[in-house]
Amino acid sequence: MTSMTRVDGRSAEQLRPVSITRGWLDHAEGSVLVEFGRTRVLCAASVTEGVPRWRRDSGEGWVTAEYAMLPRSTNTRSARESVKGKIGGRTMEISRLVGRSLRAVIDHAALGENTIVLDCDVLQADGGTRTAAITGAYVALVDAVRHLERKGALKGQALIDSVSAVSVGVVGGVPMLDLCYEEDVRADTDMNVVMTGDGRYVEVQGTAEREPFDRKLLDGLLELSAIGCAELTRAQSEALAVDLPAGSAR
Amino acid sequence: MTSMTRVDGRSAEQLRPVSITRGWLDHAEGSVLVEFGRTRVLCAASVTEGVPRWRRDSGEGWVTAEYAMLPRSTNTRSARESVKGKIGGRTMEISRLVGRSLRAVIDHAALGENTIVLDCDVLQADGGTRTAAITGAYVALVDAVRHLERKGALKGQALIDSVSAVSVGVVGGVPMLDLCYEEDVRADTDMNVVMTGDGRYVEVQGTAEREPFDRKLLDGLLELSAIGCAELTRAQSEALAVDLPAGSAR
Amino acid sequence: MTSMTRVDGRSAEQLRPVSITRGWLDHAEGSVLVEFGRTRVLCAASVTEGVPRWRRDSGEGWVTAEYAMLPRSTNTRSARESVKGKIGGRTMEISRLVGRSLRAVIDHAALGENTIVLDCDVLQADGGTRTAAITGAYVALVDAVRHLERKGALKGQALIDSVSAVSVGVVGGVPMLDLCYEEDVRADTDMNVVMTGDGRYVEVQGTAEREPFDRKLLDGLLELSAIGCAELTRAQSEALAVDLPAGSAR
Amino acid sequence: MTSMTRVDGRSAEQLRPVSITRGWLDHAEGSVLVEFGRTRVLCAASVTEGVPRWRRDSGEGWVTAEYAMLPRSTNTRSARESVKGKIGGRTMEISRLVGRSLRAVIDHAALGENTIVLDCDVLQADGGTRTAAITGAYVALVDAVRHLERKGALKGQALIDSVSAVSVGVVGGVPMLDLCYEEDVRADTDMNVVMTGDGRYVEVQGTAEREPFDRKLLDGLLELSAIGCAELTRAQSEALAVDLPAGSAR
Amino acid sequence: MTSMTRVDGRSAEQLRPVSITRGWLDHAEGSVLVEFGRTRVLCAASVTEGVPRWRRDSGEGWVTAEYAMLPRSTNTRSARESVKGKIGGRTMEISRLVGRSLRAVIDHAALGENTIVLDCDVLQADGGTRTAAITGAYVALVDAVRHLERKGALKGQALIDSVSAVSVGVVGGVPMLDLCYEEDVRADTDMNVVMTGDGRYVEVQGTAEREPFDRKLLDGLLELSAIGCAELTRAQSEALAVDLPAGSAR
Amino acid sequence: MTSMTRVDGRSAEQLRPVSITRGWLDHAEGSVLVEFGRTRVLCAASVTEGVPRWRRDSGEGWVTAEYAMLPRSTNTRSARESVKGKIGGRTMEISRLVGRSLRAVIDHAALGENTIVLDCDVLQADGGTRTAAITGAYVALVDAVRHLERKGALKGQALIDSVSAVSVGVVGGVPMLDLCYEEDVRADTDMNVVMTGDGRYVEVQGTAEREPFDRKLLDGLLELSAIGCAELTRAQSEALAVDLPAGSAR
Repeated sequence: MTSMTRVDGRSAEQLRPVSITRGWLDHAEGSVLVEFGRTRVLCAASVTEGVPRWRRDSGEGWVTAEYAMLPRSTNTRSARESVKGKIGGRTMEISRLVGRSLRAVIDHAALGENTIVLDCDVLQADGGTRTAAITGAYVALVDAVRHLERKGALKGQALIDSVSAVSVGVVGGVPMLDLCYEEDVRADTDMNVVMTGDGRYVEVQGTAEREPFDRKLLDGLLELSAIGCAELTRAQSEALAVDLPAGSAR
Repeated sequence: MTSMTRVDGRSAEQLRPVSITRGWLDHAEGSVLVEFGRTRVLCAASVTEGVPRWRRDSGEGWVTAEYAMLPRSTNTRSARESVKGKIGGRTMEISRLVGRSLRAVIDHAALGENTIVLDCDVLQADGGTRTAAITGAYVALVDAVRHLERKGALKGQALIDSVSAVSVGVVGGVPMLDLCYEEDVRADTDMNVVMTGDGRYVEVQGTAEREPFDRKLLDGLLELSAIGCAELTRAQSEALAVDLPAGSAR
Repeated sequence: MTSMTRVDGRSAEQLRPVSITRGWLDHAEGSVLVEFGRTRVLCAASVTEGVPRWRRDSGEGWVTAEYAMLPRSTNTRSARESVKGKIGGRTMEISRLVGRSLRAVIDHAALGENTIVLDCDVLQADGGTRTAAITGAYVALVDAVRHLERKGALKGQALIDSVSAVSVGVVGGVPMLDLCYEEDVRADTDMNVVMTGDGRYVEVQGTAEREPFDRKLLDGLLELSAIGCAELTRAQSEALAVDLPAGSAR
Repeated sequence: MTSMTRVDGRSAEQLRPVSITRGWLDHAEGSVLVEFGRTRVLCAASVTEGVPRWRRDSGEGWVTAEYAMLPRSTNTRSARESVKGKIGGRTMEISRLVGRSLRAVIDHAALGENTIVLDCDVLQADGGTRTAAITGAYVALVDAVRHLERKGALKGQALIDSVSAVSVGVVGGVPMLDLCYEEDVRADTDMNVVMTGDGRYVEVQGTAEREPFDRKLLDGLLELSAIGCAELTRAQSEALAVDLPAGSAR
Repeated sequence: MTSMTRVDGRSAEQLRPVSITRGWLDHAEGSVLVEFGRTRVLCAASVTEGVPRWRRDSGEGWVTAEYAMLPRSTNTRSARESVKGKIGGRTMEISRLVGRSLRAVIDHAALGENTIVLDCDVLQADGGTRTAAITGAYVALVDAVRHLERKGALKGQALIDSVSAVSVGVVGGVPMLDLCYEEDVRADTDMNVVMTGDGRYVEVQGTAEREPFDRKLLDGLLELSAIGCAELTRAQSEALAVDLPAGSAR
Repeated sequence: MTSMTRVDGRSAEQLRPVSITRGWLDHAEGSVLVEFGRTRVLCAASVTEGVPRWRRDSGEGWVTAEYAMLPRSTNTRSARESVKGKIGGRTMEISRLVGRSLRAVIDHAALGENTIVLDCDVLQADGGTRTAAITGAYVALVDAVRHLERKGALKGQALIDSVSAVSVGVVGGVPMLDLCYEEDVRADTDMNVVMTGDGRYVEVQGTAEREPFDRKLLDGLLELSAIGCAELTRAQSEALAVDLPAGSAR
């Protein structure tokens, strides 16, 4: 692993500063403003009784997610998908990824016939929005599950493990952790890894942006991502260790 | 005017605490997080060279706005308009209102063939989201105009006046200023007033939600709204008096 | 008030010739061809048993409206909204306005769980289409309510009052009543006022098209609109005083 | 051919009363209110310079049509296609049929690079709306062509022939001309025939609604339709023989 | 009838080689790859219990069809209708035609409350795709009905007759049977005829592409189509006479 | 690696029978019917001169792909995306994956300003449709590139390497190659691997369907996929070694 300095002065295996602010919204049953450097995602968990039609009378709950970017979260403004009248492929792909990642740590039977929707809205984008979304949404999900617990609406321990995600990539031949946008556009390979708190994989998505990559580079990226996810798991634990203020709506 | 106490302890002619935070985003040419009590709207101004096709070669610029609510800005989650594949009537109506209000204080010839889009995304809703959006968007617009000025892209003084907006309504027979959600649902009449800094009207939109209203009540509401807009004009001036930090992207 | 002559020879406080023809369609429970000068709107009231899902078991009825323009109602042809696959903001805004205006004079409990839809289709447009639509739709609504009454489907007196609407505007500095298209495009301020038969306001929507307006101009416009609505109320009464032909389908 | 009396007292080979009112609209270059009994269709011809992109620089013009029904033209209200966000198959099919029928009598080279759009909006439906639309649209088309002629915008004689259309069907085993709605729903076979003024076929569309039909019935229907189209051709000629009033906008 | 040789060496009254391959798919209850020369359509019949909502509790079944073309079935690639977000008029028109044609030979009461959907996807287009679709879909429909019969789900003999379809047209003044694409684009008149096995008409759709046609040409086309449909009926019978392989999924 | 027998008798590291039929369509510049067991995908390559607007004047070409399933390719019929009016997330995700995979082996500068669209339509689905699509589309792409070469439209060697794809998964704790549908639904982990002919990775997409997976299982899956892709590369070479028949349209 190299110790070459990066655009923002980090070492290759270093995350950007991570900030997880719980209770950022008054209405949602769980809400988190998560920041990976300048990337800023607002995650809101909404609890409703009942499940979608296709899951009714299964005794099991449902967790799903929707990801979106504000038009000016990015460097140049993008048109709203609501105005275009359809959702782009990237948005759908990430929404599905966030949902799958969270469901991997949920015991749906213990959840009972309740639905939790995680809205992940990117307020500012600087690379790694999907991994920040997963990492923050997990914390909002925990608050939503605690809300159900306080109401006596669970049928057991609904959370099996924690889940976090990080991007890794090969920039200038060097594997690097948690790419910012400037690094991301220059990367040969881009990989998003979603891991549980106990260090197993939920998703591994590696893409050769330019040059195909060999097994050795792949191994290097997998190692870096494990370092990053372990650190994010700690940040999630710390954020969740604090009690939310008593007067909070949740 | 009565001095009866309201749900949040205000008097009838009192605004909620107003907060205007400039430079909340790193990429946008102007950005404001505006708060009217618990209502929180993120306003981003995006500058692009050129104008829409129908306005080309007119020598004049264009200012427009898009308003939207995050799914969980409200008490219960609403479906995303991008997912539904179409924009609702209320969203369109407010987007058009915000755009018209800002254009009322713009000298389009002085702006030159530049376009400024104001995105007003409601992060949290507690009544008065459209009036907060107009009030905040004006401040973001000023920063975008200053950005064009620094670039030497203007052909004159593009801002004619300031503009702000406030809601007024009749609750329990009493005209009140700046309704929060709880008051809004109980109001007989609901009115949104958009005024320039010099105290003239840009928009007056009054709706009898239950009982039709007479001229006397209408006059009372108009007076209250003038008080509110004057105070918002002061808050805008104060926010704009400060220099943005040097390292800012704009 | 000035007595300056207008493009069509009217005085400032004079309406265009108003014509209200009931029973213009054979199928609808109420139907009116309303004309304000060359503006021609076909209003059809459709009665159905039952109410939308969200209102079921409330014991209350529902009145709603849809406004649309034929492609060649205007000077140059506009594309059909059905072909474009979405409804424009202006169309939605006016549909919502017409619906709210009619609901203001309906006692929903007396209506019972019945729905009345008012379709207002502009056959020819020459300014004031939304105000003609409201004025005509009210008359069609009365015929639909009478139809329900004859069937014994009402639970009381469903109509509380009458409702009509008129546009006013400032053209060349002079407040004028019931603007035709040629005046409308030259107006500095444009205002639509919806009033009940007893002279109270249902909606007041004033917009500064160019110059913001002051309180004195606003007062002048409000006075003109009261004159216009009073006259429209008389025209509605006269039209409704006549019996529809016996052989009519309703 | 039988002389059995029909629901409205007609003989089998008799059209309903036909009325063709030219100049019904003030803005359109040609406009006709056509009535086949209670069926009432408003046909507006809109002329624009230039042709669609795919036809540019061909030296040839273009004629097209859009057909639609008002929501309450029918016995029970139908949802608007603009609200549903898509056009139904029947609407598209008829729009295409009307366009093809009119193009059959147009010399596109003589028309020059001009476009004429025929909007056929059904105000009231009682069977035969597509045939009334074609018959009326032809007359509006003539007025639009005359408008181009007066402007000197034609390159020759743009109209080759006239065109009209009629429905025929087998009701209770008997071929009948120009079915009204009540007959249409009871018909075994339904056929629409579009013919030129000189008695040749432009379209023949026969459909077995219940029982397949044999050659003999087909021949009977074809004969009836020739009788009907000949009569409609006469009605078109008579309507077109009159001068439109001098003050007309066209 | 002329014996002039055609682009592919056929005589005027000769079909292209017809091939009907049953059981082309493993999952569908009936499936046919039908070929008219180079035109190749995959027809799949899907059986489901129950009927659409509007037909419930009628005791009757429902047969419907959807036609579509693969993007590169044609000479130059066409955009996908799913990507465009709407179905074109031609697609809808043909889907409706195929559905009507099949329903003409179905006894819906005998079918019981079962639905059969026929998907006709054009893999390669060389003229006559709609007639090949109808001819192939009938064979797939028979296999689907036999499937229901084996399951004991029918209430009688669901098939009344067979149905097939062929195109005819006038090319260079000569009526010809079963036009290939090269002939189709040069045809003056284009006609599609759908006939039952006993020689009666289900649909007759003739269109003058250039010159209107007279009764004599129409008669010539009708005779040719009867020759073609009779031959297709024989091809259908032969294909259906064979047992499908035992190991087949159906 | 286990040698346990699978549902279809294969060993864990064995592919299903692979069949690659070139020239299956007459119009497309390249076309392949690819079969992985019962999975059957039709891949058509369409060449057009020029590139999308955003790439113009870059001197570089563009390769893209669209994936779709026929409604009855699956066990039970799915609704058409064209009828639903929008494309699902899975379809978009796979279309994007196929496009990226093919672009990884294209030298866009050598391609010149030409566009190649690969349409991958699943005629029958039995697991592994996306990997069959990539594997078949590559062969169709080669034929399209050869077509450009014969026309002298290339600026160099446009193909850098070959590309193929295979699925691997953990079923009953055992890593297995090329899952059929029955195995796929029972798999704990599902992984799709896209590799170049020289054995490097283009895409690695692993998803824990039930239990998160550890590094050891991941390594096992990566090894299996390398075996599969090597074999598919051989099958592609063999298919491409043969000359297409002389009379072919390409």
